Amino acid sequence: MGQNLALNIAEKGFPISVYNRTTSKVDETVERAKREGDLPVYGFHDPESFVQSIQKPRVIIMLVKAGAPVDQTIKTLSGYMERGDCIINGGNEWYENTERREKEMSGLGLLYLGMGVSGGEEDILLKVAAQVPDSGPCVTYIGKGGSGNFVKMVHNGIEYGDMQLIAEAYDVLKSVGKLSNEELRSVFSQWNKGELLSFLIEITADIFGIKDDRGEGYLVDKVLDKTGMKGTGKWTVQQAAELSVAAPTIAASLDSRFLSGLKEERVKAAKVFKSGGFGDILTDQTMDKAKLIDNVRQALYASKICSYAQGMNLIRAKSMEKVWDLKLGELARIWKGGCIIRAIFLDRIKKAYDRNPDLANLLVDPEFAKEIIDRQSAWRRVVCLAINSGISTPGMSSSLAYFDTYRRERLPANLVQSQRDYFGAHTYERVDTEGSFHTEWFKLAKL
Amino acid sequence: MGQNLALNIAEKGFPISVYNRTTSKVDETVERAKREGDLPVYGFHDPESFVQSIQKPRVIIMLVKAGAPVDQTIKTLSGYMERGDCIINGGNEWYENTERREKEMSGLGLLYLGMGVSGGEEDILLKVAAQVPDSGPCVTYIGKGGSGNFVKMVHNGIEYGDMQLIAEAYDVLKSVGKLSNEELRSVFSQWNKGELLSFLIEITADIFGIKDDRGEGYLVDKVLDKTGMKGTGKWTVQQAAELSVAAPTIAASLDSRFLSGLKEERVKAAKVFKSGGFGDILTDQTMDKAKLIDNVRQALYASKICSYAQGMNLIRAKSMEKVWDLKLGELARIWKGGCIIRAIFLDRIKKAYDRNPDLANLLVDPEFAKEIIDRQSAWRRVVCLAINSGISTPGMSSSLAYFDTYRRERLPANLVQSQRDYFGAHTYERVDTEGSFHTEWFKLAKL
Repeated sequence: MGQNLALNIAEKGFPISVYNRTTSKVDETVERAKREGDLPVYGFHDPESFVQSIQKPRVIIMLVKAGAPVDQTIKTLSGYMERGDCIINGGNEWYENTERREKEMSGLGLLYLGMGVSGGEEDILLKVAAQVPDSGPCVTYIGKGGSGNFVKMVHNGIEYGDMQLIAEAYDVLKSVGKLSNEELRSVFSQWNKGELLSFLIEITADIFGIKDDRGEGYLVDKVLDKTGMKGTGKWTVQQAAELSVAAPTIAASLDSRFLSGLKEERVKAAKVFKSGGFGDILTDQTMDKAKLIDNVRQALYASKICSYAQGMNLIRAKSMEKVWDLKLGELARIWKGGCIIRAIFLDRIKKAYDRNPDLANLLVDPEFAKEIIDRQSAWRRVVCLAINSGISTPGMSSSLAYFDTYRRERLPANLVQSQRDYFGAHTYERVDTEGSFHTEWFKLAKL
Repeated sequence: MGQNLALNIAEKGFPISVYNRTTSKVDETVERAKREGDLPVYGFHDPESFVQSIQKPRVIIMLVKAGAPVDQTIKTLSGYMERGDCIINGGNEWYENTERREKEMSGLGLLYLGMGVSGGEEDILLKVAAQVPDSGPCVTYIGKGGSGNFVKMVHNGIEYGDMQLIAEAYDVLKSVGKLSNEELRSVFSQWNKGELLSFLIEITADIFGIKDDRGEGYLVDKVLDKTGMKGTGKWTVQQAAELSVAAPTIAASLDSRFLSGLKEERVKAAKVFKSGGFGDILTDQTMDKAKLIDNVRQALYASKICSYAQGMNLIRAKSMEKVWDLKLGELARIWKGGCIIRAIFLDRIKKAYDRNPDLANLLVDPEFAKEIIDRQSAWRRVVCLAINSGISTPGMSSSLAYFDTYRRERLPANLVQSQRDYFGAHTYERVDTEGSFHTEWFKLAKL
């Protein structure tokens, strides 16, 4: 990623110095820059000459693994830097680390900025950033402190959600609908022309078309069903709990990655339950193929709305806690191009916040509400179809539960609160009058 | 809780000194002790005379709000304590705080122990603890460091899960099955005679029988549907993410509490969707009442197995990380009496770990597997019934998704990993050969 960013910057006409602890990577970048049109990329094998080569006040963009490696690199570079110089961390990072470093660097007279992937040093980055017609470059100054990193973290959590929902759509179409890879390719290509138009749907269509270069059949069928991860999804889920924001779709995506990793356990469990009468598919459900495809598309779209509603509310909750004053519509705008979750859908989100910047939840925006109402029957059909086939759709079903919980005036939480007052005297409120009440449930029950 | 514990200890014949910053609480406890049979409880209004009154080496049990208040109390008391004295924290606490304090206190020659609620100072506590026939007192030394607090934290997470699942059973029976409170009371009383026999089912039956003392009808219907919480559920979910353990049922319970708190937003959302054709119940589903009750019982029980499987695996993962060497069967044993989640069901868990201490997951224990196989049709029916009625059952449906994911040999995670390799060169493994692979998906797709 560092190499690509450096070449991208050089291509826009900005001369750039590059440095990496692994010197072969430096040479490789310089050679590639030469090959791709003699771009102004200058390589350095030691940090001192690298720093000295940069015009003052220096701006250094760093792309290093989050946490300790970033601290180590800052220590190395800052030894050669001077008052007024600036380090920009372009990698993912836990937002509190950014706030800590900002403070430490300021003590040395240096500037420090967490950039996520699409923000920061604007003169250069405005040109480097993806451009979207009618919407401008996909870059903005997010806000102070760790806000840029926080927003990028939630972006990644949403990305987890999108990928999980697409995987579930694939699973239902393949396992229940028996679609071939060629059919799947055509379905996703078709979807990419409508409301689901997005980078992730596009590459999914591509993936189904690629043949295995080491044998018969398609590559996707040879890929092991274990998903890796790098930490931002985990942080998103932990922050949601910290901020009392429900984010079940994102959490379901993270859990699915965890369970995918237990391949050996799953193989054993499948044997245990196969002998108990469970086949790969529990019962063959019949649904017309075209209808199934259309239903799954609707379920995917409705679930996606729930997932983005969660992510946006998470950002808002943190922004309020930290007084960052983030603009949700502006975030949707910069996500429209360049990043992994880029999608036509983000324009709808931007418009929802343009209509009402104080929107409590995307679900109750009039346009999104209408879209959900139109899709809810298909959504329920797909989730029940999956359940009755023994196919899990944790992302879609937790999205649906989120929707049905959020739109419910009266939840069974009265029982939970009664239980809490029964065994722990935690008190309760009443529907008909103000105040806090406690009842001696046990005594009354045993009268 | 402090008062109850003090009286309980005094009742067993151990003289006890009591102290509280609010002196009226001290007096109240001493008076109650006198009333209840002249128990040996001695009250103190200042920390110094309280500490001086205790026989050396002193043992002080503290019940104070987690975090800073505990630190403050330790600071106050330890000033008067001497080498070899011991402080036991009987409240819920973040396990890392316990480990920190243990270290700090040991520097002063003092002992410190985190006790959760049922462990610790055994001479006294063995007598104070709940006794279960054939199973012994519900107390044990959990393990070193913060392990006691960690286990108590997960106990509370499981408690959240149990309460949420019961609330969902109530919701389906009331909203879909139209059961009255009297019918609900009789159903839960009946359930409490079988496999679901537990403290929480028992108090739920009690709750449905209690009339409102401020008006017509039943009290449970007057309780506001907003659920409070105190932090241990949140910690459990955050630790699950930290340890890469899927705990969707516990997470769904936490999210349900968060969403219950948004009462005003829910009332508005209900209006938005009601005008879009959503009633309180989407479609009237017909199912024989007796059959519905029986199906819901089975769904509740099967979901409960998943929830406990998650909690137990969470404890095991932490125990391995910290080398605590915790015995899962022993934990199930001490939970059989006294605590909120006490249930006949825990005996089955203990036996599962007795059969196989290295059991990867409760789901694949032969007895639990059989119980799930017997109940899975009813479980799927109840979740789909709820979905088609527009009633959310996030706990039951995420439990079912957990089960269907865990017992699946091949998940659609191959697609997610293909996407990650496509856009981020994160590499993938193959099903047919060892090693780590990367494909230039984009180039191949655009050939």
